[in-house]
Amino acid sequence: MNRVRMGVIGLGWFGVKHCEALAAIPAVELAAVCTRTESRLADVAATFDVPDAYTDYNQLLADPEIDAVSIVTMWDQHTEPALAALAAGKHVFLEKPMASTAEDCQAIVDAAAASDRAFMVGHICRFNPRYAAAKQEIDEGKIGRIVSMYARRNIPAAVTTEILEKIGPIIGDGVHDTDLMLWCSGDQIVSAYAQSLSWRDKTHADLAWTMFRFASGAIGVLENVWCLPDRTPFQIDERLEIIGTKGSIHVQETHPNFSIVDADGWRSPDTTYWPTHFGRLRGALVEELSYFADCVRDGRQPEMITPDESMAAVVACLAAEESARTGDVVTL
Amino acid sequence: MNRVRMGVIGLGWFGVKHCEALAAIPAVELAAVCTRTESRLADVAATFDVPDAYTDYNQLLADPEIDAVSIVTMWDQHTEPALAALAAGKHVFLEKPMASTAEDCQAIVDAAAASDRAFMVGHICRFNPRYAAAKQEIDEGKIGRIVSMYARRNIPAAVTTEILEKIGPIIGDGVHDTDLMLWCSGDQIVSAYAQSLSWRDKTHADLAWTMFRFASGAIGVLENVWCLPDRTPFQIDERLEIIGTKGSIHVQETHPNFSIVDADGWRSPDTTYWPTHFGRLRGALVEELSYFADCVRDGRQPEMITPDESMAAVVACLAAEESARTGDVVTL
Amino acid sequence: MNRVRMGVIGLGWFGVKHCEALAAIPAVELAAVCTRTESRLADVAATFDVPDAYTDYNQLLADPEIDAVSIVTMWDQHTEPALAALAAGKHVFLEKPMASTAEDCQAIVDAAAASDRAFMVGHICRFNPRYAAAKQEIDEGKIGRIVSMYARRNIPAAVTTEILEKIGPIIGDGVHDTDLMLWCSGDQIVSAYAQSLSWRDKTHADLAWTMFRFASGAIGVLENVWCLPDRTPFQIDERLEIIGTKGSIHVQETHPNFSIVDADGWRSPDTTYWPTHFGRLRGALVEELSYFADCVRDGRQPEMITPDESMAAVVACLAAEESARTGDVVTL
Amino acid sequence: MNRVRMGVIGLGWFGVKHCEALAAIPAVELAAVCTRTESRLADVAATFDVPDAYTDYNQLLADPEIDAVSIVTMWDQHTEPALAALAAGKHVFLEKPMASTAEDCQAIVDAAAASDRAFMVGHICRFNPRYAAAKQEIDEGKIGRIVSMYARRNIPAAVTTEILEKIGPIIGDGVHDTDLMLWCSGDQIVSAYAQSLSWRDKTHADLAWTMFRFASGAIGVLENVWCLPDRTPFQIDERLEIIGTKGSIHVQETHPNFSIVDADGWRSPDTTYWPTHFGRLRGALVEELSYFADCVRDGRQPEMITPDESMAAVVACLAAEESARTGDVVTL
Repeated sequence: MNRVRMGVIGLGWFGVKHCEALAAIPAVELAAVCTRTESRLADVAATFDVPDAYTDYNQLLADPEIDAVSIVTMWDQHTEPALAALAAGKHVFLEKPMASTAEDCQAIVDAAAASDRAFMVGHICRFNPRYAAAKQEIDEGKIGRIVSMYARRNIPAAVTTEILEKIGPIIGDGVHDTDLMLWCSGDQIVSAYAQSLSWRDKTHADLAWTMFRFASGAIGVLENVWCLPDRTPFQIDERLEIIGTKGSIHVQETHPNFSIVDADGWRSPDTTYWPTHFGRLRGALVEELSYFADCVRDGRQPEMITPDESMAAVVACLAAEESARTGDVVTL
Repeated sequence: MNRVRMGVIGLGWFGVKHCEALAAIPAVELAAVCTRTESRLADVAATFDVPDAYTDYNQLLADPEIDAVSIVTMWDQHTEPALAALAAGKHVFLEKPMASTAEDCQAIVDAAAASDRAFMVGHICRFNPRYAAAKQEIDEGKIGRIVSMYARRNIPAAVTTEILEKIGPIIGDGVHDTDLMLWCSGDQIVSAYAQSLSWRDKTHADLAWTMFRFASGAIGVLENVWCLPDRTPFQIDERLEIIGTKGSIHVQETHPNFSIVDADGWRSPDTTYWPTHFGRLRGALVEELSYFADCVRDGRQPEMITPDESMAAVVACLAAEESARTGDVVTL
Repeated sequence: MNRVRMGVIGLGWFGVKHCEALAAIPAVELAAVCTRTESRLADVAATFDVPDAYTDYNQLLADPEIDAVSIVTMWDQHTEPALAALAAGKHVFLEKPMASTAEDCQAIVDAAAASDRAFMVGHICRFNPRYAAAKQEIDEGKIGRIVSMYARRNIPAAVTTEILEKIGPIIGDGVHDTDLMLWCSGDQIVSAYAQSLSWRDKTHADLAWTMFRFASGAIGVLENVWCLPDRTPFQIDERLEIIGTKGSIHVQETHPNFSIVDADGWRSPDTTYWPTHFGRLRGALVEELSYFADCVRDGRQPEMITPDESMAAVVACLAAEESARTGDVVTL
Repeated sequence: MNRVRMGVIGLGWFGVKHCEALAAIPAVELAAVCTRTESRLADVAATFDVPDAYTDYNQLLADPEIDAVSIVTMWDQHTEPALAALAAGKHVFLEKPMASTAEDCQAIVDAAAASDRAFMVGHICRFNPRYAAAKQEIDEGKIGRIVSMYARRNIPAAVTTEILEKIGPIIGDGVHDTDLMLWCSGDQIVSAYAQSLSWRDKTHADLAWTMFRFASGAIGVLENVWCLPDRTPFQIDERLEIIGTKGSIHVQETHPNFSIVDADGWRSPDTTYWPTHFGRLRGALVEELSYFADCVRDGRQPEMITPDESMAAVVACLAAEESARTGDVVTL
């Protein structure tokens, strides 16, 4: 087996997590890293023993030895590197959300369509075995026609203090569940109504509730509270319930599957997305990037997530944000 | 102690439940019953050994020996007997929802205000010890300023087959949680947006989601799915979560507190509202009616629930129903 | 209705709780209190506005105006006041466990049998609506023949620091579940095996596990951990699961029915046994004492709990404690 | 990368699951299969397109192209093929439990020690991310000294109808949790007491409870009910709780993480051990065999599970089975 040579662009917290994941995949070689911050660049390159380290992603893209890139820049700085990477003939894994405007999404969708390279946005929840099982049961007709969907993705206030200066809860987290609802239902969103509330004087709202109407008549509701009280005894409250005419599906993540009480109180550490056990990174991020690398190696387009799907989730979340801002129902 | 002599007007399923509850309260004498259906009347009178049985509530109200009445007629037939009973000088316990229009609610509120008799609408959830505890903790400032509320009250489709010809899920069940949200927050609802979905060709929608905005900026969301799939292994999914700036409250009723698997599958029978154990009716309905009877005996107005509060819950739910019908946000 | 005039003997924390409960029951008059500690006596008498306050229970028993007494002395000081009260012709409500030796239990059983007064030990869990429902479903044959029972009753270490100098976890808490297992199954315990562990240098063990064998072959297991870590985010972990050949029953109390996160972290306050809401004591203790008072007023023996049953639970728990001490299986 | 060439010996339900897992691992080539049943052999060989199919494992072991074998024969037929495979110089993955007697375990332990080949018994739960996280937190000292452990692994009666003719619940399922308790605590079991109950006239008991005492004084309790009532709405009830002096750990698998209600009622399909999503086998079995294959490829002994550990779990479970048979406490 030839290993896929990959580079990571953007080395924030999650970019480094990508490095860890790629380093953990036998079929991948983490061959290059890139960030504008020089000290960070040197640290990360040393940690992962990566030979090629760049402050300019164009230099990384110019290296013909690199097969594919993982783009983990800030969510509103996705478009340029994604387009440049595709233009440079690289396979592209792009973190979610796809981009910060519908126009940028469309430009990426078009570029991906015009390219024969593998392209995929990182909707990691699709690689969570619970959601994958949900999708599969629904596809098999087990719950009939979907009539109601509810997703909660709430996190403690302490976690979002800085994030809320950069991104809000609907596009920041609700996009996960918007994507899951679209994926599970195979439906389209026709309108969005949302309410948000700010109380900590951040750039973005502390919490938001969104109500989507789907073309079939189904209703989808997102709860995105990014300000759970400080003493909340777990790190995320993540749930999905889908009710159909013949059945229903219930997913509850992290808590109460695994929890620990220690000197710091109750925690429910992640055992699904990127846990590290005995020095080895495991979970959905590794599975997701492995899947992408397999597609690259096998010369096929990722079927698990398509560019159109990634754009649809962004467009719906932006409509919800507009509704929260204006107070009006926004039709898509 | 003198016993309070009470009559029950309306002897459907829940009217009979009232009879059971009143019969179980030592301080009350179930002295009269009334329904238009003669055979039903005879049966109920015999079952509870009640001397006075009427087909016309005016006759019951004319009996000077009756101190108080419990009105359990159809929800859109509350106004006339309520007004007549107050006019006749009776203490009045009226089942929820107060009435079917804002005008009718106002008429009842006015009549209650003009009377010195005890008057109370049966918002039974306030007598559920979990919700009572929630209210008390909030009043003590434990969770700070309320920013988000979520209530689920979902029931299996089989249970609502006939009910949906008479009443819809928002005013039928959402009114419970609307009242709880208003009670717990001490806030006012300023707008309502709702989506509903019909798929069983009933007079009313099979399910609805409602999003309220409160004057403080808090958001309240109601989930009222009256069509859980047939094989749903419990009889109600009832939850309330209230998130504040300093804390949060989580109530989950019935399931998983008590559940039984038997030849019929999994059930989670009610142990809160009106369970009968060893031949004795217990729970919130008995507590609620006991509280009302105590108020009658002590000659004081019920403070636990005021007429204005009961009206406010109806008005908000009617606004949500209008929103679900028109697709517009309805301002209150 | 004539009110039952009752006295409370023993005014520790739980004796005062009895006073609160009796004061909350309209059909009861809290007429006398008794404790050896004079300052405590004066305080309690003042709080509840009780006219007759005694330091010697014999004086209280000598008052012919007193119909009944509630005995809430230390668990190993139950026998003398119980026998004296029966001898004085009083109705007797005795807190659990009945007594601290099989001989003492027998003496009380004999005295109760020889008396025509109402006598009942306070196995309060039987008045928890979840356990009552369990018993009823089992009696109706819903789960077939019982084959396995598991009860957990774990509490934080901080709560038991002082208690463990006076009583151990098996007889102190396991007696609740031993009684529930005997009650629900209608079976007899034939052997007991237990292991306990001490790590805080208390008089009694910090935790114990007990395995009972019943005459039918059913197995019953008690988990009594009285040393949950300090940061445990709830106040009790109380569960019961009963598996039969045709069905099963699952009870989970307090958490997660009701929980609150506030500045002190997560709590799951009691909403079942003796919650106080809006100044009014509610729950199983009030129901239990009401039931007893009804029996007194109606001149009948309490059927909900018999003296033999109370003795059987003590005997089994003492056998388990012996097993934990000796390492041997103890046959009953 | 060179692929590890592996053969599977024993092609029952779980042997085929091994074939699926090995076929899903890029670094492994499923090169040979073996079972005595010729028709089964042909089917499996065809399904997985395996060139070499044998009815005698000695023939398979004689093939010098085979690097490693996975032995999935009946639990009491592990010893001969395991010893033969080691003698033939193969790397050996052996399903749990290691063997059916302490003597056989010792023989395998000795043979593995004398060999330089990789050897590992399939204690799959160690590859469940929840248990792995538990072990890691404990090793980091987060919960202090362990004082109490409780494991439940209950399954519906319908699932065990045939299994109970071959193996009982303690050694069959309790061995998982015995291994987890030994692994997590790093402790030794010094005594075992167990009770079992038969009601379906099977060769082995329908259910068993086991109480272990550890050298440190910690108590470990196993619940293994292999006869949950037919209408039980989930496929396994799997829990582990470990209480220490400074903290506690709580694992709850499958239900309620993921559940579905459909025409067949409620199910909680496995999403941890060997779920298949979109045609791809995932989960702990694949991780476990990947880990083993990595050890083979890297020429190192598996550290995650040692032969001594596998033997210790068997010895403790056999002691518990002896206790259940004799009624005596068995000292190890």
